Amino acid sequence: MNRNQIKTVAFVLLVLAAGTATLAMAQMKPEDAIRARQSIMRVMSLNVGPLAGMAQGKIPFNKDVFTANALRLESIWAMNPPQYFIPGTDKPVPGSMIAGFTHAKPEIWSNAAKFKEAQDHAREAIGKLAQAARSGDEGAMKAAVGDVGKACKGCHDDFQSK
Amino acid sequence: MNRNQIKTVAFVLLVLAAGTATLAMAQMKPEDAIRARQSIMRVMSLNVGPLAGMAQGKIPFNKDVFTANALRLESIWAMNPPQYFIPGTDKPVPGSMIAGFTHAKPEIWSNAAKFKEAQDHAREAIGKLAQAARSGDEGAMKAAVGDVGKACKGCHDDFQSK
Repeated sequence: MNRNQIKTVAFVLLVLAAGTATLAMAQMKPEDAIRARQSIMRVMSLNVGPLAGMAQGKIPFNKDVFTANALRLESIWAMNPPQYFIPGTDKPVPGSMIAGFTHAKPEIWSNAAKFKEAQDHAREAIGKLAQAARSGDEGAMKAAVGDVGKACKGCHDDFQSK
Repeated sequence: MNRNQIKTVAFVLLVLAAGTATLAMAQMKPEDAIRARQSIMRVMSLNVGPLAGMAQGKIPFNKDVFTANALRLESIWAMNPPQYFIPGTDKPVPGSMIAGFTHAKPEIWSNAAKFKEAQDHAREAIGKLAQAARSGDEGAMKAAVGDVGKACKGCHDDFQSK
């Protein structure tokens, strides 16, 4: 396959995957969707923590741990956590012990275009981090963490209440 | 390096990683540890769901999705969720909205040897599933899901309250 054919196949796969995801989401209870997105984000944060620590020199650089966390972050982001902001998940779910709270701001739904931009930023930053990890270059690896942090913070500032 | 040297290096890395984890755990608040383990287990379950569905023929087999989920499961298990059963996390944390509950049974702490066995079973089953996914053989992939399900269920039956 040439480059354009690969792009076409990738696009078709993406559309198919999105279709499957949408079907699954429609069948999901609001409290399960809130729990899913919060769990995914928390697991991402558990991986980002050591990466930020190493990038800032607060903990010793360990190439194996850095690489594992960076690739895991890419793999978990591919679960597409923003897809779980389905209708009915803008407020805590009454009576649900598990999803009795949410920090989602109304702007997630009222400014979908900006929310999409924030997701694109995250996807790009995480992709570049994983690429740097695959290169094995310590400087590039550490440098790539900064933009991931900016993508996290930017989106949380705009779309997550304190 | 020969095979034995590789094994030695792998063992040393494991010990170092375990040391780092233990240090990090000791500094962790109980409510954060409960949230960490619950989030990791929930993300694992989000990946196991489609695998079980495909293995049981309830949803169409999709090799790309299957492989991605199986490898992601392996990568997330490597975060070692059982390490978050630290002292002080056997009961809900009072006043914590996030970790106001836990389903951990006392047997996690009172029968540590059996809990360790359950973890070994999970690790082995998930490792074989990932290996099957890497082989690309549809039959082997589907067959390997069964033992993962058994490992999940066995541990939950013994160590998780309803």
